[in-house]
Amino acid sequence: MPSTLYIIGTGPGDPELLTVKAINALKKCPVFVTPKGSPNGNSTALSIVKQAVDTRGKEIMELHFPMIKIHIGTMPITEVREAWQHAARTVLSLLEQGKDVAFPTLGDPAVYSTGYYLYENIMEIDPAACVKFISGITAMSSCSAATAIPVCLGDEMLAIIPATFRDHRLRQTLEIFDTVVLMKVHKVIPHLCTLLGELGLLGKSVLVERAGMDNERVINDLTTITEPPHYFSTIIVRKKG
Amino acid sequence: MPSTLYIIGTGPGDPELLTVKAINALKKCPVFVTPKGSPNGNSTALSIVKQAVDTRGKEIMELHFPMIKIHIGTMPITEVREAWQHAARTVLSLLEQGKDVAFPTLGDPAVYSTGYYLYENIMEIDPAACVKFISGITAMSSCSAATAIPVCLGDEMLAIIPATFRDHRLRQTLEIFDTVVLMKVHKVIPHLCTLLGELGLLGKSVLVERAGMDNERVINDLTTITEPPHYFSTIIVRKKG
Repeated sequence: MPSTLYIIGTGPGDPELLTVKAINALKKCPVFVTPKGSPNGNSTALSIVKQAVDTRGKEIMELHFPMIKIHIGTMPITEVREAWQHAARTVLSLLEQGKDVAFPTLGDPAVYSTGYYLYENIMEIDPAACVKFISGITAMSSCSAATAIPVCLGDEMLAIIPATFRDHRLRQTLEIFDTVVLMKVHKVIPHLCTLLGELGLLGKSVLVERAGMDNERVINDLTTITEPPHYFSTIIVRKKG
Repeated sequence: MPSTLYIIGTGPGDPELLTVKAINALKKCPVFVTPKGSPNGNSTALSIVKQAVDTRGKEIMELHFPMIKIHIGTMPITEVREAWQHAARTVLSLLEQGKDVAFPTLGDPAVYSTGYYLYENIMEIDPAACVKFISGITAMSSCSAATAIPVCLGDEMLAIIPATFRDHRLRQTLEIFDTVVLMKVHKVIPHLCTLLGELGLLGKSVLVERAGMDNERVINDLTTITEPPHYFSTIIVRKKG
């Protein structure tokens, strides 16, 4: 088996929410490459991993991935691409040295994860590189577990969308779907409260801050929120039940 | 801490995809209660659990939960309710005896799981009963990992819906969302191929059969499917990338 990059979901925060597969891959890899949103920031994914496996003797490379800037467009796109290409070349060089590499990413690689930016940049340089994905527990699942609210049952329809849209899509989705999981809510609570109020859905909404972490907080009445909640906040709007 | 019912997501099939938290809870509980769709059927969730933990010495109660009949309506609804109430009373009786109970459920309790039917019936009888949910890896995450296709990136919108609708909702969702995860697809492949073809999305669709299980199969061209795939099949329709 050739040297492999494992893109590993760490789950939402509780180190016990890593899978056995994730832990086995982390134990096996001599190198961890982790993303940081800012040059002086900490990697949340790495801090979870450190609680789950012994990292003594591991080579840990914290690389700066300017993720947010891709969306808000304040950094030249070439600078973003260069950061990702640098990360991709770094990982490929490690694989060429015969080292397996772990890239832990918060939650699940499938859902709003940085892992795919790394993957795509690697595939552009070397489509034959060996990359495997190991699923993690999503913030959505963790919010559901914290509140005992299922996100879908029977024939129900579920939507997962960023709450940052200001066009018709947010309202349209809230009107059509049985359950809507709103991500990236921390900066738009007042706007959401207005919209959910207009749709008669405030009583059907719950916010979970830091789901699956030690300081998890469940807020059942969104109108009581006076300050922006933590970045790791998710709202479940469930019409039934 | 009072005796507790743990509703535990087993993930999609690979026993390594259980979380450490799930395994610790399973080890701790002296009784496993597991759902079976038919009186003579096997519990897939239990078969996964048996590969992950030593079940010698555990009391295993396989109860018949006539799940499917709730939706297709061929069984009197009272009979369904009675089966669930019986299960709820059985679990409550075990908790009263001071025993922790594990209820393993395929995938994640949040997403189309039988666990919530048990939970709701228990809450109706005893709202003070101690029930905890332990998240699992969803079929969606597992399909994403198998195909290296993210389900959402950046500002994308994701929908998860049963593919069995025959009204406008399926088409509408496929038109609006960036990624659509279609569940319960095995009986409606010809209908889906027609619809996806009309919307120009056949080339953007992939079916994963038994994701995360030993005999996982990825089908990139849905039109090549001549026989209904396995019940554990999911389609990801991703417009971008």
